[in-house]
Formats: sequence, structure tokens, C-alpha cells
Amino acid sequence: MTAIPLLDDLRSALGDAAVLTDPDLLRTHERDEADLCTAGKPLAVVRPRTTAEVVAVVRAAARHGVPVVPQGARTGLAGAANAVDGAVLLSMVAMDRILEIDPVSRIAVVQPGVVNAALADAVAKQGLWYPPDPGSWESSTIGGNVATNAGGMCCVKYGVTTEYVLGLEVVLASGEVLRTGRRTAKGVAGYDLTRLFVGSEGTLGVITEVTVSLRPAPEDSLTLVAVFPTTAAAGTAVAGIAERGLTPSLLELLDHTHLRAIEAYRPMGLRTDAQALLLAAVDTGGRAADDLAGIAEVCTAAGADEVYAATDAAEAAALLQARRLAHPAMEKFAADTFPAGTGGLVIDDVAVPRGALAALLDGVARIAEECGVLIGVVGHAGDGNMHPNIVVDRADPASVARGRRAFDEIMRLGLELGGTCTGEHGVGLLKRDWLAREIGPVGIRVHQAIKQALDPAGLFNPGKVF
Amino acid sequence: MTAIPLLDDLRSALGDAAVLTDPDLLRTHERDEADLCTAGKPLAVVRPRTTAEVVAVVRAAARHGVPVVPQGARTGLAGAANAVDGAVLLSMVAMDRILEIDPVSRIAVVQPGVVNAALADAVAKQGLWYPPDPGSWESSTIGGNVATNAGGMCCVKYGVTTEYVLGLEVVLASGEVLRTGRRTAKGVAGYDLTRLFVGSEGTLGVITEVTVSLRPAPEDSLTLVAVFPTTAAAGTAVAGIAERGLTPSLLELLDHTHLRAIEAYRPMGLRTDAQALLLAAVDTGGRAADDLAGIAEVCTAAGADEVYAATDAAEAAALLQARRLAHPAMEKFAADTFPAGTGGLVIDDVAVPRGALAALLDGVARIAEECGVLIGVVGHAGDGNMHPNIVVDRADPASVARGRRAFDEIMRLGLELGGTCTGEHGVGLLKRDWLAREIGPVGIRVHQAIKQALDPAGLFNPGKVF
Repeated sequence: MTAIPLLDDLRSALGDAAVLTDPDLLRTHERDEADLCTAGKPLAVVRPRTTAEVVAVVRAAARHGVPVVPQGARTGLAGAANAVDGAVLLSMVAMDRILEIDPVSRIAVVQPGVVNAALADAVAKQGLWYPPDPGSWESSTIGGNVATNAGGMCCVKYGVTTEYVLGLEVVLASGEVLRTGRRTAKGVAGYDLTRLFVGSEGTLGVITEVTVSLRPAPEDSLTLVAVFPTTAAAGTAVAGIAERGLTPSLLELLDHTHLRAIEAYRPMGLRTDAQALLLAAVDTGGRAADDLAGIAEVCTAAGADEVYAATDAAEAAALLQARRLAHPAMEKFAADTFPAGTGGLVIDDVAVPRGALAALLDGVARIAEECGVLIGVVGHAGDGNMHPNIVVDRADPASVARGRRAFDEIMRLGLELGGTCTGEHGVGLLKRDWLAREIGPVGIRVHQAIKQALDPAGLFNPGKVF
Repeated sequence: MTAIPLLDDLRSALGDAAVLTDPDLLRTHERDEADLCTAGKPLAVVRPRTTAEVVAVVRAAARHGVPVVPQGARTGLAGAANAVDGAVLLSMVAMDRILEIDPVSRIAVVQPGVVNAALADAVAKQGLWYPPDPGSWESSTIGGNVATNAGGMCCVKYGVTTEYVLGLEVVLASGEVLRTGRRTAKGVAGYDLTRLFVGSEGTLGVITEVTVSLRPAPEDSLTLVAVFPTTAAAGTAVAGIAERGLTPSLLELLDHTHLRAIEAYRPMGLRTDAQALLLAAVDTGGRAADDLAGIAEVCTAAGADEVYAATDAAEAAALLQARRLAHPAMEKFAADTFPAGTGGLVIDDVAVPRGALAALLDGVARIAEECGVLIGVVGHAGDGNMHPNIVVDRADPASVARGRRAFDEIMRLGLELGGTCTGEHGVGLLKRDWLAREIGPVGIRVHQAIKQALDPAGLFNPGKVF
């Protein structure tokens, strides 16, 4: 083994145990959960425990001209955390302390490696709530959530990660430590650097501390299920709910394919003959029953052939759990679709204005037919944010190519409908071309200028986003 | 009159009527409503009607090396819209059309010159609500609100302007037209350029179109007044309300000085013997009466000597109107404080974490005593965002100097308490030094790098913010 000067520098700064080059470990850290993306061969995984150690890593990497790829739990779905050839993978999982919870100012200060669920649990013990709840919440980290501006099911009423980030500590490419934002409810001192880093997918700096705002514990909610004979009818119901001024705290859609997949994965009596199911909840206190009745009315008017309210919290929790199982169930379903178990799932993510949801759902069905692939659709209907999941046979290049074509057609349709190429998963490697189409050459030039301003040598996560 | 090539260019691009050089008009456009700030002598005021005309102005100014200062209604309180010597004042008030209101997607698309109240009225007719409500809402423009990230009274529950800006059209210093953001509820495609421009106070580009998100019409609310024997007791009540998990839709504080000023300005039976009054509202539907009772309990426990609920909507509206009169009433009060009517008001703006509100109020009283000035405090208590208003005799330089000293001491105290030098008025010219102290040299360097990346020649609003 030849001596590598950067590794020597890292080991002397962080200690041997924090600088890992075991080939198996490197392999497990090469990529996040995104499909259709390449991954390079990293030099090492380093696990700093303090901001000073992050600074040491960044300075050493800069000195040696080696790229740095920040990583959280690698649950991302766009390849933003994938390795770049020769890179230092800067794993933030060891910086996992909750530094402060303040119930009066309703803020928490955490290190980036804190798992979303750990923060949620800790603040719940003080009667508080950290709303952002990405599907990966039991394993993904706050740092990763911030870097990708993660969404989730509560976002339809309570907003995405960026709404809850008040301030950051960031290590810049220069090795300087920047503090952005504030601990106050309001503040307009200078540019909103905090939100420039939120969602920047590790390309502008390394997040080493996050100050988040919290809400009081959520209200009890009432839950309803509506079953539709067509997906477009479900889309119409979503538009109608918005038009009527209702504000559900959850409004999720599962299509026929996902209903079958979930029922096969864990039988719970879902209507597998339905073309679409809407799962809605309201948490409007004394008005909740009226609001739920309003949603039921809209669903019936849009053509739902069955609408029923959960009779108790246990039934509501079971329905929510069914929705949370959509992803693993659909993975299993995809695998089983092909005899040799070679089926896989290409997960897409598109958001359109709420009023265009029905058109999106119809369009995805048309694309599935034209491309000759099976596409199941699930997602955050109330936000117009859908995940069309494309079943492909990984052993058959033609099948994968058809899936890729469907993926691109969905992107094209989303933009045509006034939408965006990513509602919550981010750009990473997966959607660089689509970002360029969405924001155009002026937008890309502005991105490049900002990157150049903050990271002129291209140290952080090169090749990602744009 | 000598020919000025830039004016010729502007007149040929926009027509004579849109390029104004009348000395009186220039004088009225020299400054916004900020105190303690300098203003330069502008070359001209131009009033474009289209984005193409803005592009023409920006390109012409860049060609001639003349700075451009974007202006809305000039109601700002930090000097961000003040003229720079020789500058083109780019008044956006003629671009005042509401382009679209979509009740399903709950968005509106507006030109920057639309007055806040005009947008609020237009969307209300469709059962919708645009919450941000700065004190200037009847005259300030959406473009100005976005450029300064304006706050208001509803922000304690519903957030400030940036929470409602989905996308922008911006003319860059290069003359290119950038479109940022989206029309969808969620989206994470690339850097959050939208929020980089929000609050950038005209230093990065000229906003020519704004896409805002809307909410359903607000709920009916219940209103309560609590009267306190000390300001600190009112501050303690605010912390207690937060700690109990209550979410008032309005939580405002008026101190003794403001109560007297309002009562003198328009007698309405306010308790002028009180040291502080909290005005609270809740809009939590069926739970509102319980929540109001909870707030009353907390206020009583904190030492309120009187707590009463508004008996009807008319009384609640009158109380709100009293709060809205605080600013003009205090201006009048300040003028009348000195025999020759030479009194004036230096308006400060500071925000601290909610738990530090009582300490801030105590500290401001101490500063008033130490500096030998009268300071009235009013503001958005629920956000920890206070406006200490300092009464000075403009005819007496020593009085103005004492006021300036008090102003700076309040800034220093705010930062010591973990706060920010501006909760909602912005930096402009007034707080450049305090911004530098708050964000430090690394923060300033990042601001400079971003400014350099987007406006390398320093065309837009030079000398503002940092």
C-alpha cells in the first residue's frame, strides 16, 4: 500500500479510527438510494466528530485538490450523495448530538448527524413537534434533510424542511466557518444565506450545525379514505378540496398498482379493485368533523364510489402505516413482477400545480401505455407532488431503456403542466439535464456564478445538480 | 440644460413621459421613510411599464456606468430605497397589474408595483388570503415587500413575506431576465434563488414579477387585552403563552408611552396608567374560546391586573385599529414633546428569541434612563420583534446624539440577547455596521462574493446593506 499524503494528513488530524479505507465499507458508501445514477470510487470515508475536524478535512482536501462529498444516511433518491472518483466521503453521522431544545423560543439546535426520528422523539417529550417527515425519517439525518430540503406527508399543511431551518453553521470551501441566520422567529439581516444552503445538496458547504424552529405538539386528527374508479377523479377531488378552502393535514394518493402491492406485502383489506385511493386527515380541532365531512362531499362529487372515516385512532394509524409501506411494498412487487426476481423500481418525483394533478395522472397512464411499462403512482396529492414508480426488468436492457424513456416523458409532461422536475427528492445526478431545461440557460449561469463565488475550486460535490 | 446621453437613451427606449427629471419630483423620490440616513442626488426617476423596459433601463445604465436604485412606494424604514448620487431611480409603481389569481393552486401572479392592500382585496373576493400585512400595507408595494421581506402583525402565526413567495422574475445586472422558483406547492429544483432575492433590498436585481402563494380566507378570531403593571411582566406572559403551546394569530405589545400617545391621538378609553398592554387574538375555530382562556390565565399568572375579551367583532376591530395607530400617534406625540414642534421619532427594530423578551424590555428602559431619552416600545411581541421608538428634538443636535446612542445601545443589547439587528425593517443604510457585527467577517465576505457574482460592476443599489 503506497502512502497517500492526504490520508496521512486526515489521520493526524482526526485519528486513525475516523479515516476509513476498508474496501467493503467504501463500497457501501459509494451511493445513495437513487437509481439510474453513476457512482465513482472514493478514496476514503471520514467521520468527523466536531466542526474543527470538518474544517481540518476540508482544508486538507483543498490542499491536495481532492473533492469532498458530504454524506448523511445516504437515503437520498437523486444521487447527490454518490461518490466522485478519488473523493473523500465526508460522513456526518458521528456528529449526532442534540445540543439544545428551548420550549419558549420553540427552537432546537442539533448536529447534522441527528436522525430525523431522534429529533422528533426528543422534542415530543417536551410537548413540541418537528414536522418535516420524509419517508426515510427513521433513518435519514437532519443534515441530509436540510441539504436536500426534504419533504414528507405533513408538508401539505406544515411545509417542507426549509420552513423550519432558522440558522446554520457551515464549513466553506475556504475552511472558514460561516454562521447563517438566527435564533429568533423573525429576522431580515442580510441575504437569506440559510436558505441558499438548504437544498444545495452539498455543493456549497458542509453543514455542521442546524437551528430549527419547532411547533407545539400536533392536534389530534380525523382520517378519511375515499376510493375512486379512476385516478383522474381522485385528482379532481384534490383540486376540489383546495378550491373549497379546506386545509387537510395530510392528503395522499395511492393508485391501483400500489394498493395491490401493499395488500400483497401486508394484507389489510385495502380495496384492490379501486383505481385510486385518497387518504386525507384534518387536525382543525373543533371544526375537524365539519372539515372531514366537506372533504367527503367533495370526493363523492368527484366520483368516489366509497368514502369512509376511520372509526378510531388505531384504524387511522393503520391507514397511515399502509401509506408508509407503499415504497417497500412496491419494491417487492417490482421484484416479483419478473420470474427471476430481477424486477426493480425506478422512482420518479414530479410536482405540478394542484389544478393540474388530474392531467398529470392521466398523462402518466398514457406514458405507461406508450412506453410499454407498468407505472404505479403514489404521492403527496395535496401538494401536487407525485412519485410515478416505473417497474423495469433489470436483467433486460430493453426494459430498462423503456423505463428510462417513461421517466423522461414524465419529466417533460410535468414541465409542460407548469410543474417542476423535482418536488422533494432533489436534482443530484439524476436530474441535472431536467434542471437545465426547467430553469434555462440564465438560471444555470446564475447557479454557476454562485457556486464559483463560494467554491471556486469546485471542491464540494463536483458534478452534482448542474 | 446639457444633453445627458443616458437620459436620451432612456427616453428613446421608454418615451419621454416615463423619464422624469423635474427637481421637485426628484426631491420627493430621494428617500424612503428611514431616519438617520443620508440620501444622494439622483439623475432621474424612470417608470417602466414592462419587463422589456426594465431591461432597457438596466442595459442603458450599465452601458453608461450609472447606478440603479429600485424603488417601490418608499415606505421602507432603513434607507434601502434612498437615492445614490447620480443614480437612476427605477420606480416600479407603474407595473401594477395583478396578472392571475388561481384559487385551486392558491397562487397569484402580480407585477411588483401592486399595492399590498390591492392584492389582499382582490384575493379576498375569491375567498383567499394573502397574509403578510406590514404596517404600510395600504401603500407599500408587493415588490417592495419582497425586496425587504416585510413582516407584519399576522406573522406570529402565518409567517413573513418570504414564506409566500414561490417564484420571481428578476432583471439581472447583465440585462438578462431570470425566472426563479415555481408555481407548485413544493419544489427543490436547484438553489433557492427565489429566497436569495427576497430581502436582498434591491442589491442583486430588479424584481419584475412575483408569484405568491395564498391561503384560504382567515378564520374568525377572538381578541383579548391584558394590562400589565410592568413591561417585563408582559414579556413574561409572552414567553408563558409560547411555553403553554398556544398559537395566537396576533400578539402585540404597546407600552405606556404608546398607550398615552394613541389615547391623545384618538381617545378610545385605553388604560393610560398601564405600563404595558398585550393585544392577543386566536383563530383556532372550535378551540378558540379555550385558547383565549389559556392566554388570559397565563397573563394573569404573569401579573396582569386586568384581562378582558372583546365582546364582539367591532370591539376587536377597534382594538386592532388602536394598534395600527401606534405609529402615527407616536409621531404626533414626539412632535408635541418639544415646544416648537421639533420633536421626531427614531424608529428602531430589533428581534430577540421569545424567551429574552422581558430582558429586552427591561434593558430598553435602562438604556432610556442612561441615555436621557424617552423611548416608547411597540411591536410584535409574539415574535420577540420590538420597535423601540426614540423621541428626539431634531432642533437639538445633543438630543439627536443621545437618541443615536440609545439606538446603538438597543442594537448591542439585542445581539447580546441572541437576537438580530433587524426583525423586519431591513438593513439598508441604517444598519450596515450592525449587520457586519451580527454576521461577522466571514458572513460579510460571503455577501460580497454573492454580490460580485451577480452584479460585478456594482450597478444595483451600491452602498446598501453591506
